[in-house]
Amino acid sequence: MNENNNVRKNVPLVHCITNYVTVNDVANILLACGGSPIMADDINEVADITSISNALVINIGTLNERTIGSMLLAGKTANSNGIPVVLDPVGAGASALRNNTVRSLLSQVKFTVIRGNLSEMSYIAGVNSTTRGVDSSVIDDKNDAVCVANTVAISYGCVAAITGAIDVISDGKNIRKVGNGVALMGKVTGTGCMLSAVIGAYVGANDDNFSATVKAIASMGIAGEIAYDKASSVGTGSYHIAIIDAMSKLDDESIDNKARINA
Amino acid sequence: MNENNNVRKNVPLVHCITNYVTVNDVANILLACGGSPIMADDINEVADITSISNALVINIGTLNERTIGSMLLAGKTANSNGIPVVLDPVGAGASALRNNTVRSLLSQVKFTVIRGNLSEMSYIAGVNSTTRGVDSSVIDDKNDAVCVANTVAISYGCVAAITGAIDVISDGKNIRKVGNGVALMGKVTGTGCMLSAVIGAYVGANDDNFSATVKAIASMGIAGEIAYDKASSVGTGSYHIAIIDAMSKLDDESIDNKARINA
Amino acid sequence: MNENNNVRKNVPLVHCITNYVTVNDVANILLACGGSPIMADDINEVADITSISNALVINIGTLNERTIGSMLLAGKTANSNGIPVVLDPVGAGASALRNNTVRSLLSQVKFTVIRGNLSEMSYIAGVNSTTRGVDSSVIDDKNDAVCVANTVAISYGCVAAITGAIDVISDGKNIRKVGNGVALMGKVTGTGCMLSAVIGAYVGANDDNFSATVKAIASMGIAGEIAYDKASSVGTGSYHIAIIDAMSKLDDESIDNKARINA
Repeated sequence: MNENNNVRKNVPLVHCITNYVTVNDVANILLACGGSPIMADDINEVADITSISNALVINIGTLNERTIGSMLLAGKTANSNGIPVVLDPVGAGASALRNNTVRSLLSQVKFTVIRGNLSEMSYIAGVNSTTRGVDSSVIDDKNDAVCVANTVAISYGCVAAITGAIDVISDGKNIRKVGNGVALMGKVTGTGCMLSAVIGAYVGANDDNFSATVKAIASMGIAGEIAYDKASSVGTGSYHIAIIDAMSKLDDESIDNKARINA
Repeated sequence: MNENNNVRKNVPLVHCITNYVTVNDVANILLACGGSPIMADDINEVADITSISNALVINIGTLNERTIGSMLLAGKTANSNGIPVVLDPVGAGASALRNNTVRSLLSQVKFTVIRGNLSEMSYIAGVNSTTRGVDSSVIDDKNDAVCVANTVAISYGCVAAITGAIDVISDGKNIRKVGNGVALMGKVTGTGCMLSAVIGAYVGANDDNFSATVKAIASMGIAGEIAYDKASSVGTGSYHIAIIDAMSKLDDESIDNKARINA
Repeated sequence: MNENNNVRKNVPLVHCITNYVTVNDVANILLACGGSPIMADDINEVADITSISNALVINIGTLNERTIGSMLLAGKTANSNGIPVVLDPVGAGASALRNNTVRSLLSQVKFTVIRGNLSEMSYIAGVNSTTRGVDSSVIDDKNDAVCVANTVAISYGCVAAITGAIDVISDGKNIRKVGNGVALMGKVTGTGCMLSAVIGAYVGANDDNFSATVKAIASMGIAGEIAYDKASSVGTGSYHIAIIDAMSKLDDESIDNKARINA
């Protein structure tokens, strides 16, 4: 398939309202995969910026009172303009502010893709638990990732992606499991944030959100594997850089050859 | 000439009010070229910080309501104290907030150097179009970079630098074109931001703002070329690091040998 | 001793309210030494985040009106919960805002460790000078680092660490001098910020704050030395990455073998 080629050909402009911890890597991985980043978070300009973009990525990693309103406005602007929106609910469940913000975002913005780890996605699966009969408190096993992904996908009419040792992606009807990636990626801050941005680029440049998300997730895991072979013995600083190196050299053929995707 | 040596000898303190996307690279490239960075953006301290600095760099990349006032106050403080000020009008033309902020900055602060890409500088050239007879809408060709640079330089009494495949620098009377640099620099976020900061270090440590700006621009392009030879085959992550490596090893002799500067 | 092993075994969660210049490196060096970073600075969630953390690191590098209140609240929450708190008073003495913030922090929060350079620590030593008979204006010699460290340690009942060519650590009764590290570390922004965060991880995972701080400081200097051997000839970009590489490979045996610690 041509998902990466479409990114490199269309160079989607990806508006990121994201955390200041990993924002530089987010911008560089977007460039590495073929997209173009634009970061803007003031409420007086996010509507202008989202309107000229091909995708919006909302990452709540270092949310604050000033940027929460910007996230909501940008999300609604994207919805009005038919621009895909990715949510990375960093730390959902860890503080009341994050939980309330996630609830506001989910109620006011329709997301194209929601990507998080099992803990974050379990929180989201349980947001509407009283009305939908989903109880996140019973999701206590990694085997439940499929259940959580399906619940999020169906509840919010989106592609839901849970990343971990095995990544699980659901659109409510179809499930894909991606086995790429290595544990060392967890020793570099922001590999999740980077992936969410790459998903933004892929859905901004492709028509099928589900296959675009699966391909983006495989590409990030493969970049982590290539970097592992090259730099894991050197240390995590070099490994960090090698992930971006690998992403910048990937194409559809190499991704499809290395991808470990199961239905 | 001794422009870089003057930076390394004087170690100018460069106060940056800059975006959070590329701020780490901005600090590291300032150290690499021989300067010393200081980042501070709260309105209650920017006057204190600017006053002890040798140059101020204002970059509007992730401007917000809180920092716009800080930019204005810092700029006026620099003017009062005879400290050179560099403006990087990131994204001018892309949102009303950016446009209004650029107008406020241009009307309240006298800039020593304004550096941007052709689109941003064309916006600035047209800010006063009704009173000055400049119409940015007719600037539709890369050959117009000289016209735009001259217009900005004359309108604002500054050194105007337009960076691109060929960089054009004007002080309203003199023009220099710099041919250094490679396209791959566009695949690393923040090479423009880094350059604006390096210009700050150069004008903070040298007397002639025009020649200091030309030399700073050549040095960044040369760093990009050296890095290209070393790391372009590896990937954009390594290329990013190699740019800073190269800058840290440059001196006036190597810059002058490799510079491609034409009048 | 097992200080690093305790970090790698316990994986302390370190809540950082830190500057946006070096925050990515702070997160990555925390992961490299065995800890786990969490960054959050909104006043509506810092109490939640501090409460689930094993240490809190407050770094005033890019303080602003919004985050100063968050620093105070997080610090008080840590005190209430018996969580160790590290202060990095970046730029203390350089602006009234920084000075006032440091005074507020020192009066409202009990710190476990305060780490800064001689200038910053001299400012802190003099904060209570009128009531305690300490006059920072007489501290004009590097030989006074022991005096300054002792004064800060006794005044605030903390471990005080002054880092420089020779690092001096005092708990008010004991002094250790650490000779590790190289001058090139000053050409990478944030090595001080990174060290303060590493100290947070060490005191969050060990019982003895004084020995944990000494070991953390030695580890950072050793990482700088290993990186120097590997990358100093390449440039400061690679040197930066090599510091994180080295930290990620250190263990207690290699630290103890290379440490140059004198009483």
